[in-house]
Amino acid sequence: MDPRVSDHADVLVEHCCDVTADDNVLVRAPPAAEDLVVALYERLGERGARPALHWGSARAGRAYARAMDPEEYRTADHTLAEMKATDIVFMIGGSRNTAETSDVAPEMSAARGRAREPILKERLDTQWVITQHPTAGNAQKAEMSTEGYEAFVYRAVNKDWDEQREHQAQLVDLLDPASEVRIVSGDTTDVTMSVDGMDAINDDGEMNMPGGEVFTAPVPDSVDGEVLFDKPLLRSGREIEDAFLRFEDGEVVEHSAEQNEELLTAILDTDEGARRLGELGIGMNRDIDRFTYNMLFDEKMGDTVHMAVGDAIGECVPEDAEKNESAQHVDMIVDMAEDSRIEIDGEVIQRNGTFRFEDGFET
Amino acid sequence: MDPRVSDHADVLVEHCCDVTADDNVLVRAPPAAEDLVVALYERLGERGARPALHWGSARAGRAYARAMDPEEYRTADHTLAEMKATDIVFMIGGSRNTAETSDVAPEMSAARGRAREPILKERLDTQWVITQHPTAGNAQKAEMSTEGYEAFVYRAVNKDWDEQREHQAQLVDLLDPASEVRIVSGDTTDVTMSVDGMDAINDDGEMNMPGGEVFTAPVPDSVDGEVLFDKPLLRSGREIEDAFLRFEDGEVVEHSAEQNEELLTAILDTDEGARRLGELGIGMNRDIDRFTYNMLFDEKMGDTVHMAVGDAIGECVPEDAEKNESAQHVDMIVDMAEDSRIEIDGEVIQRNGTFRFEDGFET
Repeated sequence: MDPRVSDHADVLVEHCCDVTADDNVLVRAPPAAEDLVVALYERLGERGARPALHWGSARAGRAYARAMDPEEYRTADHTLAEMKATDIVFMIGGSRNTAETSDVAPEMSAARGRAREPILKERLDTQWVITQHPTAGNAQKAEMSTEGYEAFVYRAVNKDWDEQREHQAQLVDLLDPASEVRIVSGDTTDVTMSVDGMDAINDDGEMNMPGGEVFTAPVPDSVDGEVLFDKPLLRSGREIEDAFLRFEDGEVVEHSAEQNEELLTAILDTDEGARRLGELGIGMNRDIDRFTYNMLFDEKMGDTVHMAVGDAIGECVPEDAEKNESAQHVDMIVDMAEDSRIEIDGEVIQRNGTFRFEDGFET
Repeated sequence: MDPRVSDHADVLVEHCCDVTADDNVLVRAPPAAEDLVVALYERLGERGARPALHWGSARAGRAYARAMDPEEYRTADHTLAEMKATDIVFMIGGSRNTAETSDVAPEMSAARGRAREPILKERLDTQWVITQHPTAGNAQKAEMSTEGYEAFVYRAVNKDWDEQREHQAQLVDLLDPASEVRIVSGDTTDVTMSVDGMDAINDDGEMNMPGGEVFTAPVPDSVDGEVLFDKPLLRSGREIEDAFLRFEDGEVVEHSAEQNEELLTAILDTDEGARRLGELGIGMNRDIDRFTYNMLFDEKMGDTVHMAVGDAIGECVPEDAEKNESAQHVDMIVDMAEDSRIEIDGEVIQRNGTFRFEDGFET
C-alpha cells in the first residue's frame, strides 16, 4: 500500500479524533476509496474499536432518487437508531464520476435533506471527520493528473497540524472578539454581518481533514448586502456557477446563478433556515494552492472566504445566542485574491488574500 | 445494464420478500456486486422503502481482524441498534478474491461470531435474503469462465419458483411427519437422527436466492454416527476439505479434516451448540447442475444433503421442542450421487441422488 495512505489513516485516528476500544465507529466510503478504508480498519482493529462500514454508492443513490416520489421521503429509522449509538463517524470522499447524480431532480436533494435532518443532528453530536481519498474522478474534476492530484491531497493532509493551528490562532484572536465583519470583493461582493457574541473556531483539521480555516456563525438577522460566489459549487453532481445572493435583515431576498439556478433555488427553499447564513469561514491552508472544485479543499485556501446558507455549527453559537437551524448547510466561496478585503470592526485584516500578520500585507 | 441483473432484482423484491413503503431495508454487498445493488435500489425507490447500504469489504475485514485482539471482540452497539430497527435485510455475495481472508487466524472467526451473535439473532427476526452476484472471483473459484458462471447463476435464480415449490412439496410430505432419518454414503457416512416433532420447510427461494432445498432441525441429542463431508467448505477464505465428524448422543466427539482442520476445530469450539447439528437439508434444485464451491448453490443440488453444526433455524422448531442455539451455523455437504441413500423411518426415499418421486428411482 502507498505509505501516504497509511499516513493519512494515522492522521485520522490520532489527530482528527481519539479512537478507543469503547467506540462504536461508522465509516462511510465509496469503493474507490477502499485503500484508505483498509488502512483505517487496520488501525481500528489495533485499538479494539467496533466499526461498521457504509458504502457511499452514488450510482445506487441516483437509481433510488430517480425512482422515488419526493413526497415519500422519510427518515430511515434504522439509520437513525444506528447513528444514536455511534461515537465516531468517518466520511470519506472519493469519486469515480463526480457527475454521477447530475440527472437527479434538484427537489430530490432538498427532500432527502429534510428526511435526513434527524440523522444529521445525531451525527453532529458524534466525533465526526470528513476527508478525501484521491481518485481519478476527483483528479479529473480538478483538471489534474491522478498522480499530481494524489501529491496535492497528501501535501494538504499529511502535514504538521500543530504549526497550522498556531498560524490560524492569529486570526482567531482578531475574529473572536469582533462585532462586525465586512467582506468586499470587486464590484460584486459587499456584505456586512454581526458576529457579536459568537465564537470563532480554529479548524486545525479535526472535523475536516484537511482543515485549515477559521470559522464563526453570523448573527442570523444581521447579514446585509450582496455576495457573488465566483467559484463554482459542486452539488448533487452539478455545478452551480456564479451564485449571487442579496441579503436584507439576514434573509436572502434575491438570488440567481449563471448555471443550475434551479438547484440553488431548491436549496434555499428547503426550509426557513436555508435562506439565512449559518457560517462565515476564512481559508488559511497555504498548502492548498489551487482550486480543485472540491469544497473540502477549496474553502481552506488562504485567498478565499466562504459562507454557508443553512445550519450553523453548534460550536460557534453560545447557549444564550440564536442559532440558525436548517436541514441544509451549503458552503459557497468568494475568491479574495484580487481587489478584495476583509474588515473587522472597520479595520482591514486581509487585503487581496494576504492577512495582516503575513508578509506582504498592504495597509 | 444486463437485463438478467434487473430480473434478479425483481425476484428479490417480488418473490423473496414483499417490500413496502414502511420498510427499513438493509442492503449488504461488496463493490463487485454494484450492478445488482443499483437495480435493487431502483426498486426500493419505486416502493418508497428506506434503504441503508453496508459495504462487505473482505479486505477491510481482514485488516481489522489481523490487527484485533480476539479477547477484545465485542458486539457493535450501533450495528445492533440498527438491526433492531430493520425490517428486511438483503445480503449479496460477490467476491473479487474468495481467498481474501485466508490469512486471518481461525480463532478470530469464532471470536467474531460470538460478538455478532446478538446481531445475528436480530437479523433472523427480520425478513432476510441471501443471494449472489456473479463475479470473476466466484467464477474462478467455480473453475468457470465469467460468462459461463453468469449463465449458471441466472439459470438458478431467474426461474419459475412456483413450479420449484411444487416439486419440493413431494419431499416435505415425506419428511415432515418422519421420526427418524438415516443418511448413508459409501463407507464413510452413516448417521441417524430424530426429526420427531420438527417442521420440514419448503425452501422455494425466500431466505436464500437461489433456494431449492427442504430442511429441518434434528432433535439435538439424537444424532448418532459418522459423516464425511466430501465436498469442500469455504470458510473465512479457506477451504476445509474432507471434514469428518463422529456424533454420540448428538454431540461431536471426534473430528478431523484433510485440510484446515484447525479452522474446523475453532468452529466447533465456539460454544456448546456449535458441537451439535442445527440443520439437516436436502438439495432439490435441478438447475444447479455442478459444484461451484459456494454453499448457497452447492447445498441446493439435487444430489446432495447438507448438515449444519450450530444454530437451528427457528422455523423448523415448534415452541415446545428443544432448539439448538449457537453463534455458528456452518453448513457442510455430502455428495449423494453414488452409492448413497436417504432413509426415512426405514424406507429409502432417495438412492444415488434420485428421489422416490423422480424418474429413474431404483427401489
